Amino acid sequence: MNLILLFNEDFIEGASRVKLAGRRLKHVLDVHRAAVGDELCVGLLNDMIGVGKVVSLNEEALDMDIRLERQPPPKLPLTLVLALPRPKVIRRVFRSVSSLGVKRLILLNASRVEKSYWQSPFLSAEAMQEQLVLGLEQAKDTVLPEVLIRPLFKPFVEDELPDFIKGTLPLVAHPGASEEFPRKADKPVTLIIGPEGGFIPYEIEKLTAAGCRAVHAGERILSVETAVPALIARLF
Amino acid sequence: MNLILLFNEDFIEGASRVKLAGRRLKHVLDVHRAAVGDELCVGLLNDMIGVGKVVSLNEEALDMDIRLERQPPPKLPLTLVLALPRPKVIRRVFRSVSSLGVKRLILLNASRVEKSYWQSPFLSAEAMQEQLVLGLEQAKDTVLPEVLIRPLFKPFVEDELPDFIKGTLPLVAHPGASEEFPRKADKPVTLIIGPEGGFIPYEIEKLTAAGCRAVHAGERILSVETAVPALIARLF
Repeated sequence: MNLILLFNEDFIEGASRVKLAGRRLKHVLDVHRAAVGDELCVGLLNDMIGVGKVVSLNEEALDMDIRLERQPPPKLPLTLVLALPRPKVIRRVFRSVSSLGVKRLILLNASRVEKSYWQSPFLSAEAMQEQLVLGLEQAKDTVLPEVLIRPLFKPFVEDELPDFIKGTLPLVAHPGASEEFPRKADKPVTLIIGPEGGFIPYEIEKLTAAGCRAVHAGERILSVETAVPALIARLF
Repeated sequence: MNLILLFNEDFIEGASRVKLAGRRLKHVLDVHRAAVGDELCVGLLNDMIGVGKVVSLNEEALDMDIRLERQPPPKLPLTLVLALPRPKVIRRVFRSVSSLGVKRLILLNASRVEKSYWQSPFLSAEAMQEQLVLGLEQAKDTVLPEVLIRPLFKPFVEDELPDFIKGTLPLVAHPGASEEFPRKADKPVTLIIGPEGGFIPYEIEKLTAAGCRAVHAGERILSVETAVPALIARLF
């Protein structure tokens, strides 16, 4: 937690005093080992970043006086479309995507996504926000990525994707492609990453018919957890 | 498992027939759902890649006829020096580093590495190899990275590091640095990544005195799991 993320409901006594308990209090006690008078990095959800000065701290609560003074880091101009990963992996992917500053994440169905993955409790709005917040706290950001869930491949690709890719560089990472993954993007990007085992040929056809360019990023097949930061880092 | 990694002890009846059981058999049955006559991607540890034709397959064993015919993908000319990550994370880092093709990994102590991490059972030679092999199988590679464990910071940096960085671009990722992380490396690289919370100023001084350049990769502080693929992808 390199930044303590604050929510409107944390404020007491007006606009500059917050009272925290639970996970954030525990972290300040155990990891920051802060004391009264210390200044900690804080940020208000979807708002500015600043400093929180500890005014009281015990096992029950942490009170801080807050000074918000600068903008959070800019988001990456990126819509990331991921074939829904395994539940075991999805929470880490949320944290990673959020810490990298992805602007919009779309979780999409694909032939090689197991149906049961869509039942994962980790896809509830609350569980997603929990992980996305951890990513923001890691990266010292305050702005949540937009997350869209699309459990039907064909209607998404035919009806929605053409609008999303307008004005962007639309890429689908595909180990079989002949074109190489670009090393730098000079405009916003829509990046589509398939499931373990890859998209099936029909899906690649639909995606390219919708206007996407299939590109490969070398001989090595990376897991989604490794591919997401690796491919994003090549673009921005 | 995009490639089934073979070991010398898998061979029976000469140089072209293998018999597999355990984890690899289970994967071929459950995930590949292979049948007699199918051809699977295989590779021999630290050797070539090719095709294994299934000659018999049941709950007890998988027999394949092996044809090794091409070189594995080249390793990245990279020595990655990581402050030892938390045990919870280290296994995933081994898989990721191995799948990315890192040539040499050095796990180093630092002031903000908790002493208890060095006792992790995940650092045993056997446990490390298990994860490194999973990374190779993911990336269709056969060549294990070299892994060195260095639980003492100062002697490593003073006595060994200068030799490792000879002929390489020696970088230490440091959020406080003024120089920007390079976008492409035109020679081998030594990349040093600190612990959660970063290297302390003394450590940065020692590393730069040994010849390393402190570089920052943007405002966002990434977890080691996300930083490793992201920083490597910028270089190669």
